[in-house]
Amino acid sequence: MQTKYLFYIIIGLLSNLTSVRAQQVIPSSKLTIQGRAFAESPGFHRVDTTKYHDLPPAVKKLYTHSAGLFVTFRTNSTKLSIDWETVDAALGNNSTPIMSRGFDAYVKESNGWRFAGVARPHLKNAESSFTVVENMEKTEKEFLLYFPLYKGLRSFQLQIDEGATFTPTVQKYDKKIIVYGSSIVHGASASRPGLAYPAKISRSINADVINMGVSGNARMELEVAKMINDIKDVDLIVMDCVPNSSPQQVKERTFAFVQELRKAHPNTPILLIESITRQIGNYDQKWKERLQEQNANFKTEYDRLVAAGYKNLFYIPTDHLIGDDYEGTVDGTHPTDVGFERMVKIIQPEIEKILDLR
Amino acid sequence: MQTKYLFYIIIGLLSNLTSVRAQQVIPSSKLTIQGRAFAESPGFHRVDTTKYHDLPPAVKKLYTHSAGLFVTFRTNSTKLSIDWETVDAALGNNSTPIMSRGFDAYVKESNGWRFAGVARPHLKNAESSFTVVENMEKTEKEFLLYFPLYKGLRSFQLQIDEGATFTPTVQKYDKKIIVYGSSIVHGASASRPGLAYPAKISRSINADVINMGVSGNARMELEVAKMINDIKDVDLIVMDCVPNSSPQQVKERTFAFVQELRKAHPNTPILLIESITRQIGNYDQKWKERLQEQNANFKTEYDRLVAAGYKNLFYIPTDHLIGDDYEGTVDGTHPTDVGFERMVKIIQPEIEKILDLR
Repeated sequence: MQTKYLFYIIIGLLSNLTSVRAQQVIPSSKLTIQGRAFAESPGFHRVDTTKYHDLPPAVKKLYTHSAGLFVTFRTNSTKLSIDWETVDAALGNNSTPIMSRGFDAYVKESNGWRFAGVARPHLKNAESSFTVVENMEKTEKEFLLYFPLYKGLRSFQLQIDEGATFTPTVQKYDKKIIVYGSSIVHGASASRPGLAYPAKISRSINADVINMGVSGNARMELEVAKMINDIKDVDLIVMDCVPNSSPQQVKERTFAFVQELRKAHPNTPILLIESITRQIGNYDQKWKERLQEQNANFKTEYDRLVAAGYKNLFYIPTDHLIGDDYEGTVDGTHPTDVGFERMVKIIQPEIEKILDLR
Repeated sequence: MQTKYLFYIIIGLLSNLTSVRAQQVIPSSKLTIQGRAFAESPGFHRVDTTKYHDLPPAVKKLYTHSAGLFVTFRTNSTKLSIDWETVDAALGNNSTPIMSRGFDAYVKESNGWRFAGVARPHLKNAESSFTVVENMEKTEKEFLLYFPLYKGLRSFQLQIDEGATFTPTVQKYDKKIIVYGSSIVHGASASRPGLAYPAKISRSINADVINMGVSGNARMELEVAKMINDIKDVDLIVMDCVPNSSPQQVKERTFAFVQELRKAHPNTPILLIESITRQIGNYDQKWKERLQEQNANFKTEYDRLVAAGYKNLFYIPTDHLIGDDYEGTVDGTHPTDVGFERMVKIIQPEIEKILDLR
């Protein structure tokens, strides 16, 4: 009997050994971090916040989140895994852990990037490991991997088959678009990182669409405009910054913000977008009134800018932005993938028109 | 100076006292739990699992989740808050805490239920309190409140304005539909409880659509069919139970499951739905093959049932069920609100046709 058990144990060990194939580790240092305005930002931050020390402290912290950042590479591996660490394990109550602390991957096809898989984060630990996709054909493919939206990414490495090819790539884009905004631009509450609306538009029109969203913020501080003025070769600046600006702040800051941007971007088109119609205002009269006042003031300031002779300004009103059935948000404020899909249907054609992409 | 500070402290206290208005507590016992097949189920369970002791243990546990359950009531309160406790504080990594452990509320309008707000759960404690909506006009409105989808609800109470009217209501429906299925029916990964597809269809066609989804399960065990046979006055049974059934199980169990249902529901229409096309199978060849085999076997069994003389069977293939752009799921398996919206666009017209609702 004992010999028989020993035999089964040995067979078991051998089959385990053969099923755990050796893996090739690709450190993050081999890859080019893309999707950010300032290539020299430390680690996986969007902005070198030591350089822009006059930004509000909350905004500085938010620009250490890896929202909108991604890497691309070619490999013929049959399996792709990621080990990574975020600055902490905290989660949001209105979003998925995959969106805030995970990754999603896409593969380049002749008609664009196609979804391949996600990395789901550990719910209690800042460190996670996950296999994004396996059992793939052993053909070389180009992958795009979006970083977590709502958290600083501390480190990551890829794991692919031992012996698989690996070539880091860099995407080339004809146009660069800066999207400055609130939690909605930041990505709440897309279900996964690549479904934030700047990322969706980026894949759809093949442009470098930079996510400058700062959750709970985007109150048009002049320091932010000055920072945006350091970004070179910008083809379009999107100002989706009404939601967290009080009606008074919209009134006081919109003109000055655009005026400041014009110092470095004299002719760059600027697209001003009203706040989406927050569905919490369906019955909450205070939210409803605040929203109407915010958007009315934004329109007044836009009209004042135009009257003052500013050119190349464009405007999208709140109408229909997240649809008309009241089912476009998770919580009355933050669009779901449904809300983002509807926003893109209105915003993207406007961008294509402005940039003459059609 | 001290007198002046004392004055400010008193003013501060007074203004706090007036802003914290007295609240009226409505215990859950005043309300009728709706949206479940068995009214006599204990607490907020969907099924009395002591009665159906032959169900697989995992399935029994899942039928203690409050998926699909809701209450309705009229009030003229300007504010609606909920205090509640779930069986534990655990969360999923591919869904929002609002969906798994929170509530969402709707108000009845002349053209249907309109979103009003959500209750966001505490992320670490099983006990939560949240104000769903406030600053409402003091007119009487009817509210619908969906329970958490992915957790047992232990207790809840409502808080409304002191002196506000309160009348529990019960919805009347012409049609009762049982939807038996996997995590997708259960609600993963809608952003909030009311956006699970049975709930969406329920509001849309004003039918009693019962969520019998069991995450990670729905493998067509005969014990489940026997339980469904105890449900009275059923107008339609939906079988969306392919995703977790192996190709072999689909082959072995589909015919017998329908045969069993026909013992108690001899003429009730049964709608068989293929598994959605899991987008993890875009590149994972094993998932892709498994899915094709599952659905092919399901179709074969449907054809066998029809050939054997079973009537009133209907069939929806996987084609286009979650769209064709690969952006309908959070993780390659579970539809987001986008995926559910697309599924409903195909499933609902079929249901309306079967039930002659048009």
